[in-house]
Amino acid sequence: MKASNGVRELLAARRTGHSLDAQFYTSQEIFDLDMEAIFGRHWIYVGVEPDIPEPGDYFTVKLGRASVVVLRNDDMELRAFHNVCRHRGAQLCNAHKGSVGNLVCPYHQWTYDLSGKLIYAEHMGEDFDPSGRGLKRVHVESVAGLIFVCLAENPPEDFARMRETMARYIGPHQLADCKIAVQDEIVEAGNWKLVMENNRECYHCVSNHPELTISLYEYGFGYQPSPSNIEQVQAFRDLTEREHARWEAAGLKSAEIDELDSCVTGFRTKRLPLDKAGESQTMDAKVACQKLLGNFGERNLGGLSFWTQPNSWHHFMSDHIVTFTVLPIGPDQTLVRTKWLVHKDAVEGRDYDPAKLTAVWRATNQQDRELVEMSQRGVADPAYEPGPYSPYTEELVEKFANWYVGRLKAAVE
Amino acid sequence: MKASNGVRELLAARRTGHSLDAQFYTSQEIFDLDMEAIFGRHWIYVGVEPDIPEPGDYFTVKLGRASVVVLRNDDMELRAFHNVCRHRGAQLCNAHKGSVGNLVCPYHQWTYDLSGKLIYAEHMGEDFDPSGRGLKRVHVESVAGLIFVCLAENPPEDFARMRETMARYIGPHQLADCKIAVQDEIVEAGNWKLVMENNRECYHCVSNHPELTISLYEYGFGYQPSPSNIEQVQAFRDLTEREHARWEAAGLKSAEIDELDSCVTGFRTKRLPLDKAGESQTMDAKVACQKLLGNFGERNLGGLSFWTQPNSWHHFMSDHIVTFTVLPIGPDQTLVRTKWLVHKDAVEGRDYDPAKLTAVWRATNQQDRELVEMSQRGVADPAYEPGPYSPYTEELVEKFANWYVGRLKAAVE
Amino acid sequence: MKASNGVRELLAARRTGHSLDAQFYTSQEIFDLDMEAIFGRHWIYVGVEPDIPEPGDYFTVKLGRASVVVLRNDDMELRAFHNVCRHRGAQLCNAHKGSVGNLVCPYHQWTYDLSGKLIYAEHMGEDFDPSGRGLKRVHVESVAGLIFVCLAENPPEDFARMRETMARYIGPHQLADCKIAVQDEIVEAGNWKLVMENNRECYHCVSNHPELTISLYEYGFGYQPSPSNIEQVQAFRDLTEREHARWEAAGLKSAEIDELDSCVTGFRTKRLPLDKAGESQTMDAKVACQKLLGNFGERNLGGLSFWTQPNSWHHFMSDHIVTFTVLPIGPDQTLVRTKWLVHKDAVEGRDYDPAKLTAVWRATNQQDRELVEMSQRGVADPAYEPGPYSPYTEELVEKFANWYVGRLKAAVE
Ligand code: FES
Ligand code: FES
Ligand code: FES
Ligand SMILES: [Fe+3]
Ligand SMILES: [Fe+3]
Ligand SMILES: [Fe+3]
Repeated sequence: MKASNGVRELLAARRTGHSLDAQFYTSQEIFDLDMEAIFGRHWIYVGVEPDIPEPGDYFTVKLGRASVVVLRNDDMELRAFHNVCRHRGAQLCNAHKGSVGNLVCPYHQWTYDLSGKLIYAEHMGEDFDPSGRGLKRVHVESVAGLIFVCLAENPPEDFARMRETMARYIGPHQLADCKIAVQDEIVEAGNWKLVMENNRECYHCVSNHPELTISLYEYGFGYQPSPSNIEQVQAFRDLTEREHARWEAAGLKSAEIDELDSCVTGFRTKRLPLDKAGESQTMDAKVACQKLLGNFGERNLGGLSFWTQPNSWHHFMSDHIVTFTVLPIGPDQTLVRTKWLVHKDAVEGRDYDPAKLTAVWRATNQQDRELVEMSQRGVADPAYEPGPYSPYTEELVEKFANWYVGRLKAAVE
Repeated sequence: MKASNGVRELLAARRTGHSLDAQFYTSQEIFDLDMEAIFGRHWIYVGVEPDIPEPGDYFTVKLGRASVVVLRNDDMELRAFHNVCRHRGAQLCNAHKGSVGNLVCPYHQWTYDLSGKLIYAEHMGEDFDPSGRGLKRVHVESVAGLIFVCLAENPPEDFARMRETMARYIGPHQLADCKIAVQDEIVEAGNWKLVMENNRECYHCVSNHPELTISLYEYGFGYQPSPSNIEQVQAFRDLTEREHARWEAAGLKSAEIDELDSCVTGFRTKRLPLDKAGESQTMDAKVACQKLLGNFGERNLGGLSFWTQPNSWHHFMSDHIVTFTVLPIGPDQTLVRTKWLVHKDAVEGRDYDPAKLTAVWRATNQQDRELVEMSQRGVADPAYEPGPYSPYTEELVEKFANWYVGRLKAAVE
Repeated sequence: MKASNGVRELLAARRTGHSLDAQFYTSQEIFDLDMEAIFGRHWIYVGVEPDIPEPGDYFTVKLGRASVVVLRNDDMELRAFHNVCRHRGAQLCNAHKGSVGNLVCPYHQWTYDLSGKLIYAEHMGEDFDPSGRGLKRVHVESVAGLIFVCLAENPPEDFARMRETMARYIGPHQLADCKIAVQDEIVEAGNWKLVMENNRECYHCVSNHPELTISLYEYGFGYQPSPSNIEQVQAFRDLTEREHARWEAAGLKSAEIDELDSCVTGFRTKRLPLDKAGESQTMDAKVACQKLLGNFGERNLGGLSFWTQPNSWHHFMSDHIVTFTVLPIGPDQTLVRTKWLVHKDAVEGRDYDPAKLTAVWRATNQQDRELVEMSQRGVADPAYEPGPYSPYTEELVEKFANWYVGRLKAAVE
């Protein structure tokens, strides 16, 4: 992959334990490289199976300049294609979501079946050979209902490890039997890596997230022990141990697995106890949906978190799931898409109230948006220089930065 | 003319019979080259004589970064100038249209007469020589009332052929005796060449233009003959032959002339029969204006079409004229300006209803805008690759692409 | 400082007595150079002491991509810092103005005292050394209440000359005892140098500023003498001489000092008589505020003007002060911030009416905005070429251009 000497020098000069150089957050060249080397070669989380429950259902997603259509075929399998007609190149599916029998180009009606094969093209003459004119395939996989695509010809093979591990963790929450209750999209005026770094620490939570910290124990996200907090830190450790034992006994995988910077397909998971009522990430820490997920009989299952490199995080509770995808738009613009899922048989108004379901994360997203935007303003300032990460509360930020720099280095070498 | 090796390679690699490479639709470098080599060196359609009927009337038009003021002088001649003051460079005419005695700069009142001569400049001292400080001239010509300008010092000489040919075709419609009943401007989020290619085929008409295809025979725009349509295709050919004979007998030139890719000043014309009532491109195919153009006594004169490279098309009926100009704004933004003209003595409300006059092309323009925009989205996608043109319905698209590539090659050589 | 050969050639080719080449107004490269060489190395006017009267008061200002926070510390001294947190680089102060005890980063609460020292940073571990992690200082100085900052490590030393000279001129108006009655911000679609050039001449005043020319004698800004105006020009000279004598006798410095292109810290000042009532730059030339500034007992003190390179101008009258700062945003976008100050004890509604106070310059600013914008449109036109300055009315424009070109040359050599 082509990269200027400037970029190579920046990569070589990266100082571990410190935030990245400004250009990683501001330069168009590095953004283009990110799109090619990171979003173009890794497994990217784009949506959930309940987005497309029926045959012919599709959604489209933008990965940099590429548009991908993800669909379910008549055999209920997932398929993904580049969303570009093979005639004169019109974008094929121009809606975010829909349902089709075949994929028909709106321009001159070239028609592709759900395997991508070109099955109709008028006026093209006797000599026209439709084979080799099918839609271009994109790799697509499901992790217990979470849909990932990979634009590379040869996707990273260690995806299987994440898929199998997470199937065991997520499985009991039965994502495929959920429906999307609410979906939000916000565009943040910041580089996608600032959005990710923000997600990878809770150093900022106590002062910035009054709603989130109702149910979230701050000790769960790294804490410098000191004489004044040593008791609480220990108490949280004991609680976690007790709860893990209880959940594992009930068949719920809970122990931390962290492959954030040790795998190409980096990820991390852990089931964490919640504070107060302990049931869900809501304003009163109680379930937001009376109809529980899967076969759960109990409400107090903590929050199973799942983080992936480069672009997602997810929280699974007993009653609902919140799932986030980060989609870069430009060096200083990023789309964050949040979906709240409940059991597909839950009835709005009876079992759940969308306002209550979304209250915590809607507020938190806006707070994080402001933090990301003030970070973008700061790193774009010529006075910015990389500063030190906390060894206690920013370990996962460092892992993100390490993974990112490592993957970029691998791509440009 | 300077062009990078990348552009030269793209030009050399162009595969005939196929849509252009993505960069032709997306790169700023090629857009700048288009403005210099295509819009800076060819005859560009910018408006009609009825835009400026009286002495001192002017209009301004933007060709890339250049603004041009086109005016009628006191001898009723057309003149065109670069719209830039020779003092400190302020834009001289800051409105789209107006009427003046002299051209007075709003900044410090330097004053130019309608021949562009600087006739007043205060405070400049005894030594100041106003000669050589006149406005810079731009070539301007009228084709039977259609105004073309050329920014080049030495404009293509074959303009005369187009002017003389088209004077015979357009003449009877007496454009100079028309008035602009309605003018629309839409900005399309697509490269100007996608706007032009869209105009050069009706492969997309049947599925996308329900209003336009009321009066337009689809067979008039290229059709692959097949056992199932051979009769209709032949019937249309017979009809055209009959109508051409009738119109020519009445003094109306009708036969096709196609110099789209055989001349520097490329153009094409043909008078085509209309369907249904056969009178006009309206929702009922009947005239939209009761007062006919010129000396016409008959309503059923078909539609005389006139297409030019690189940026216009026009339809002349017995009752009204529709004329389109394409003005590039940026690699992915284009202005399309449409004017509907009727006889200058026609009275709104009595002879014509502006809503009925514009119904077909207003709808069609919006439909084409959507097609152009989905094309732009598609060709900007890294998955796009040039696809094959239909040998039946996209012949004129191919001629546009050939002309364009040829002219660009000639400019950079 | 790095500059391309193209820029060096443009600088070398500059023709004195003529407006600048187009690229100086349109190119991103030159804009970046302007921010580095001009706004990054010279004394820039950013606000007034009454913006931050109390300890802990601060305001922020954007100089290109750099944000600077200017504050008053507990010892009532001015201090300025780069507005970037030394942790992960978030922008520290995200409001335009405010009041603080310490500077606390909103992200993770790193806390700096008003000398910029890092005094608190949680979770950073035992080994963390806060020294060397303080905010980066920016030079800041007051000129009789006008605040200037300089981003350079070694600011131009001739600032002292301007400060001492102007202290004598401005002193009696006692700016520190004023309050900001009204503040306006307008964004002009033009290069900052067009904004400055516009400010440096009144060639355009008669035709464009009906409100301003109520009180402003046009003869005060350069005029070509001619048989028809020789009497008025002489009358204005005599008036100025008489008034200067009267004002100097009353202890008010009035004589012209012009160091616009003879100093690195270029400036010019002069007290000019006003027309009509002669008191103030208002719609009736009478004072807009009944409470006079300083210890003034008389209203007719003319207008003391103060112009600086590269970005400000100011008018001091007996009753109020108007002060302007020009802040470049991009090659074709500039912020102009205007403040109207009156005595701090003046009471709105009793002593002054904000609408009357601002009427002249609000109108004038909008007129100048239009002139700047039509200039930007013109110089961006490929047909633009530098034109001649008037030797009578554009002398100060020439001095601005000379100063600018000289300073840029010095920086890139
Ligand atoms: S572009 Fe899709 S059918 Fe023509
Ligand atoms: S710029 Fe036109 S008169 Fe000065
Ligand atoms: S960025 Fe300021 S405290 Fe973290
Ligand atoms: Fe957060
Ligand atoms: Fe069309
Ligand atoms: Fe002005």
